[in-house]
Amino acid sequence: MNTVKNKKKHVLILGGSSDIGIEVVKNFLKINWNVSAQFNKNKKKLEFLKKKSQNLNLIKFNFSNSKNLYIEKKISKRFNRKYDSIINLIGYVDNKSFENTNLKSILNSLTANAIYPILIEKMLVKKMLKQKWGRILNCSSIGVKFGGGKNSFNYSFSKHCLEFIPSSYKNWAKKNVFINNLRIGVTNTKIHKKMKRKKINIKNRLKLIPINRMAEPKEISNYITNLTTGSNSYMTGQTLTVSGGE
Amino acid sequence: MNTVKNKKKHVLILGGSSDIGIEVVKNFLKINWNVSAQFNKNKKKLEFLKKKSQNLNLIKFNFSNSKNLYIEKKISKRFNRKYDSIINLIGYVDNKSFENTNLKSILNSLTANAIYPILIEKMLVKKMLKQKWGRILNCSSIGVKFGGGKNSFNYSFSKHCLEFIPSSYKNWAKKNVFINNLRIGVTNTKIHKKMKRKKINIKNRLKLIPINRMAEPKEISNYITNLTTGSNSYMTGQTLTVSGGE
Amino acid sequence: MNTVKNKKKHVLILGGSSDIGIEVVKNFLKINWNVSAQFNKNKKKLEFLKKKSQNLNLIKFNFSNSKNLYIEKKISKRFNRKYDSIINLIGYVDNKSFENTNLKSILNSLTANAIYPILIEKMLVKKMLKQKWGRILNCSSIGVKFGGGKNSFNYSFSKHCLEFIPSSYKNWAKKNVFINNLRIGVTNTKIHKKMKRKKINIKNRLKLIPINRMAEPKEISNYITNLTTGSNSYMTGQTLTVSGGE
Amino acid sequence: MNTVKNKKKHVLILGGSSDIGIEVVKNFLKINWNVSAQFNKNKKKLEFLKKKSQNLNLIKFNFSNSKNLYIEKKISKRFNRKYDSIINLIGYVDNKSFENTNLKSILNSLTANAIYPILIEKMLVKKMLKQKWGRILNCSSIGVKFGGGKNSFNYSFSKHCLEFIPSSYKNWAKKNVFINNLRIGVTNTKIHKKMKRKKINIKNRLKLIPINRMAEPKEISNYITNLTTGSNSYMTGQTLTVSGGE
Repeated sequence: MNTVKNKKKHVLILGGSSDIGIEVVKNFLKINWNVSAQFNKNKKKLEFLKKKSQNLNLIKFNFSNSKNLYIEKKISKRFNRKYDSIINLIGYVDNKSFENTNLKSILNSLTANAIYPILIEKMLVKKMLKQKWGRILNCSSIGVKFGGGKNSFNYSFSKHCLEFIPSSYKNWAKKNVFINNLRIGVTNTKIHKKMKRKKINIKNRLKLIPINRMAEPKEISNYITNLTTGSNSYMTGQTLTVSGGE
Repeated sequence: MNTVKNKKKHVLILGGSSDIGIEVVKNFLKINWNVSAQFNKNKKKLEFLKKKSQNLNLIKFNFSNSKNLYIEKKISKRFNRKYDSIINLIGYVDNKSFENTNLKSILNSLTANAIYPILIEKMLVKKMLKQKWGRILNCSSIGVKFGGGKNSFNYSFSKHCLEFIPSSYKNWAKKNVFINNLRIGVTNTKIHKKMKRKKINIKNRLKLIPINRMAEPKEISNYITNLTTGSNSYMTGQTLTVSGGE
Repeated sequence: MNTVKNKKKHVLILGGSSDIGIEVVKNFLKINWNVSAQFNKNKKKLEFLKKKSQNLNLIKFNFSNSKNLYIEKKISKRFNRKYDSIINLIGYVDNKSFENTNLKSILNSLTANAIYPILIEKMLVKKMLKQKWGRILNCSSIGVKFGGGKNSFNYSFSKHCLEFIPSSYKNWAKKNVFINNLRIGVTNTKIHKKMKRKKINIKNRLKLIPINRMAEPKEISNYITNLTTGSNSYMTGQTLTVSGGE
Repeated sequence: MNTVKNKKKHVLILGGSSDIGIEVVKNFLKINWNVSAQFNKNKKKLEFLKKKSQNLNLIKFNFSNSKNLYIEKKISKRFNRKYDSIINLIGYVDNKSFENTNLKSILNSLTANAIYPILIEKMLVKKMLKQKWGRILNCSSIGVKFGGGKNSFNYSFSKHCLEFIPSSYKNWAKKNVFINNLRIGVTNTKIHKKMKRKKINIKNRLKLIPINRMAEPKEISNYITNLTTGSNSYMTGQTLTVSGGE
């Protein structure tokens, strides 16, 4: 089915230092792919993994720069090479409600979470089409289903925007290049661990999840890997939800 | 059901000079509302209507200014007053495909078609909540359902973004303030008339519409009026599609 | 747009004695259509209306007969004539949960709420296609969105089934015959009035409705009429939700 | 995450002799589950597999019996035991268009494809809840998205009905019992092979699939296995589509 080539495959993971990102990195190293992981600040865990594997390449890059409107050129410099898969896990979060948002904060979230990833995908999909293999996965959030939480308008709005799949995906499909979205439910990551320690709201939030627990980063990473390797050979243009039944 | 007040109601129509906008203006003048219609260039038809009605107020404003990132303050000056209904028909179109888009052109379409209308609605919804009555309708396009046409990535992407309904809408509902989206099908407007004259593609486009004809601006305007006057008393948070069965 | 004929139009209302049905009957009498209203037991209100109007015709028919699997022929006798619009408001309710349902009770709800209405529509749509005008509306329930309530599996399941729109609707559209679904929210009808008197659950149920009140049958009937008369000239194949924001 | 028990797991595959069913059987035998496969006529391939594995158990049962309304009791006799996963691949197909269907043929398709599987799941889910582990997958068809093909109204209607997920799934989730739907695209099975040989329509059908080829039963079986084993640990209540981008 897939014209699998013998050479090593290479995945680009945007947001690679997030808790889920780290697990995705591990998954791909385990199946012997080359991995390029973008990060901004939290490089600790990634550097630990790098020590153990020559296949891991780290890319420091700040998408949520306040001057991010001028970094288009930098992007093409830093990310323009052949990749087999792209996974977008960028999750820039501010705490703006709809009532308190403004132009600048909307644009900050939007460029970091949606527009820059889309521009990177636009640039790299051309190479995927040439090599006749590619898997793109944009990770959004279960919040999109409900219009976002009270204090996460900008985040949810930008993740909603990210979910747009351009009609070109039909042409890409012919060349074995697939694109999908994954709506991820509440996951046991730093943010939620902090909430747990502070006992903020986390109990009420958990009540809304039928499965009655948060997802572990590890289990989310498995859905991601399944969708972005050869094990996904016939699904494209879809938005999947892994959210414990929410 | 509705705490209808005796005083005259007032509707703000963004994109009021479009072919559909003109018909919406007429509808509201007919039921004796005050009408404020925003326009940019095509003021002819609006000025003709203004001569016949004291209830029509014209607002010249350019949302798709190349420097539009700095007009947030101007917006609050020009649009900040009490309205009972807001109808967003802004449709800034460029001809960029996904393959040819770039940061600047994405942001141009996005701010004009989605972010400025959203910021205006954010500003005005507060007054609606105080007066306990309000109807907001964002008009998007059937293209959103299919990921846009070949050369309308920016337009479809921005219309997709516009369709995000923030969870706050549930609180607004309690105060009789409703928000909905209307996905509009192919309509017999200037753009499509031009295509028709030039015989570009229009036949192929029509084949995709089960009803087998374009909508007339007049009939679309009736759906819009129904959703933004008292005749909509129980529907909020919805995305409706009026597209001849597409 | 519509090839409106001068002769009087005729609507068939299945479930015409329900609280919403009565209001729909009134709406159509007001705009001077002929009305055929099917009922089973509650004929009081319908007979009261009949005294005042020669345009109202009553059809007694029991769809939820325990032997309903053998009434296909009866149906073609009783309902086979020219109609311009068909509105299906049949709502046979038992109190079976998923855990307690069985073959017989599933089939009872399914035939009454979905299969018989579908067979009637199948029979009558041919005449609509000949006369090149027709509007069909199947009314389902907001419960379908959530998999039904605890004790209404059969009802919700059958309403879900009813929402299937066969691809033939695209051919019908060409002949100006439209079909849509309307998901109706909690409405102030006999059932809910009873719950209110007994203070059963109704408060908790209301909490789930953003608008914070039930719909009145009158206001639901207006959405129905708009979708099944000439005022719907370009919408087909859609499922709309009027549910106070749920 | 999962309270995996040491004892061998057991999957029930309804429609186990279909081309996809055979591959699912193979997958589960490979990971050393016990497999019970229901079939009606085509037992050849299943019996071949049975010779090689003691873990495979065959259940002959005809769901599409013309007298199928009376087999409820037989079902509880034949299928009532502990299973860890249930996969419903029953696909009873007749060739009725919407225009030519009738009560009997609707009920035949509906009971075989939807109601009997649902009743079996209802019966078996109780045991899953007790053992605190269970995965249910109902397989429907991409046709449901489009209202079915011209001559497959009964099939598509029944598959649409099957997709109803009762709200009880939220309670099941707490006990680690999940239920999902899989909409399967055009697959290279006997039916389509026959079409291919006869060159009926198959080329036109393929044109509608962005990936530009049918799915192989093997690749569909992998999606199915992923959703019904421990590798699905956080997704429930979803309808997924694996259809080559349709």
